[in-house]
Amino acid sequence: MKPALSVIKIGGNVIENKGELTRFLRLFHKVEGPKILVHGGGKEATRLGERLGIRTTMVNGRRITDKGSLEVAIMVYAGLINKSIVSELQAMECNAIGLSGADAGIIRAVKRPVVPIDFGFVGDIVSIHTDALRTFLEIGLVPVFCALSCDKGGQMLNTNADTIASELAIALSRDYRTTLYYCFEKAGVLSDIGNDLSVIPHINKQSYYSLIREKTIGEGMLPKLENCFHALDHSVHKVCVGNIGMLRPNPSAYTTLTL
Amino acid sequence: MKPALSVIKIGGNVIENKGELTRFLRLFHKVEGPKILVHGGGKEATRLGERLGIRTTMVNGRRITDKGSLEVAIMVYAGLINKSIVSELQAMECNAIGLSGADAGIIRAVKRPVVPIDFGFVGDIVSIHTDALRTFLEIGLVPVFCALSCDKGGQMLNTNADTIASELAIALSRDYRTTLYYCFEKAGVLSDIGNDLSVIPHINKQSYYSLIREKTIGEGMLPKLENCFHALDHSVHKVCVGNIGMLRPNPSAYTTLTL
Repeated sequence: MKPALSVIKIGGNVIENKGELTRFLRLFHKVEGPKILVHGGGKEATRLGERLGIRTTMVNGRRITDKGSLEVAIMVYAGLINKSIVSELQAMECNAIGLSGADAGIIRAVKRPVVPIDFGFVGDIVSIHTDALRTFLEIGLVPVFCALSCDKGGQMLNTNADTIASELAIALSRDYRTTLYYCFEKAGVLSDIGNDLSVIPHINKQSYYSLIREKTIGEGMLPKLENCFHALDHSVHKVCVGNIGMLRPNPSAYTTLTL
Repeated sequence: MKPALSVIKIGGNVIENKGELTRFLRLFHKVEGPKILVHGGGKEATRLGERLGIRTTMVNGRRITDKGSLEVAIMVYAGLINKSIVSELQAMECNAIGLSGADAGIIRAVKRPVVPIDFGFVGDIVSIHTDALRTFLEIGLVPVFCALSCDKGGQMLNTNADTIASELAIALSRDYRTTLYYCFEKAGVLSDIGNDLSVIPHINKQSYYSLIREKTIGEGMLPKLENCFHALDHSVHKVCVGNIGMLRPNPSAYTTLTL
């Protein structure tokens, strides 16, 4: 049987709040077996951009990454946030190693096509090279990925953290029985979006389609769930969605997704 | 016999100039055998600090790292510069991995004592943990270190890049026949500071003391050379000082130091 592996993604809202981040890292540290952390950027990049007078350009509600914004993203994601997480984990004696997708050539991407919308320096993942990553896990290191990758010409690219987590989980499922955790501010997938007690404990593909038909799942949650089922369709064993409480030894309610 | 290892440090002046950095990286890529790159920060951190309105405080001509300056250093060294070097090397098919001293717990430091001068968040290295680093070298990765470390409480600390290079070289000399390269803007140790053609080709400890007595070596060069002989005293095989030309297959003049 393949060994277990946990790939855990935390969103911006967990990172934003220093106390919440520390609580998360303490729980993360206690997760047994080989594990990988993927972190988003939070609003830190926007704030730094504002301080530097770099305006965030939005098209159809989506952020455009121009050269200035990319530099800010690299400084905040790979610098400030990544090293703050790594050093805090190291202080807990968790042997973390901070990585962008460029490091050890693990995540190769291409710049997103400029049609229909030119998103700027945004990357779509084309391949994951797991050789070095597997060695890191085998020697007990805990990889901590920020949401950046690079193309074959060496251009760094802003890359969706949810996608990085799912593509890493998929690529490592050849060698590991992989569980993917999406850790965000909500307790899980909710049947009533305003009520944190309405967590749907288990969703499979069949019930997923029913939930869509019944419009139980809000629009914001749809891309996330599509990403989850994409991972399950590509050999990831299980996906869990919830707040950091789902990592407790005695976890609070959260949503488990399986095929 | 131990395998050879090259530890190569580039200073701020090489990094400053994009064309010069690319020329250096092409030569670095061609250096045979396992190798490590250590980079300084350049003036990029000062520039970003200025844009953010963070004033550089100097005491006795030395920079003080307050909280704001440390954040800038982390963003620029571990973020912008480190990832720009890593992605450029990856584009040359050199399998670089960017690291701070915090990553994989490789460099442990303590905050410098506040007496006689409180330099702020500046680290003095107390130990190097080579286990993970040796694995990286064995699987063909090329570690690229920025000038940051962390203490056991998880506090990131600004750390002298020359010292990081020499301490890494020393720690790895147990397992490798290590050559340490200090790559800067001068052609080597000069007998006439204004004349780049006056490179002293070889210095040993005896001639070093003569050069000091005769005041041939300028004050700026003294700490660098002390660092070199410290490394040689602690089992580093050879130290080379010069500009990037010393890495050419047919190198220009540079200074070699041995005991």
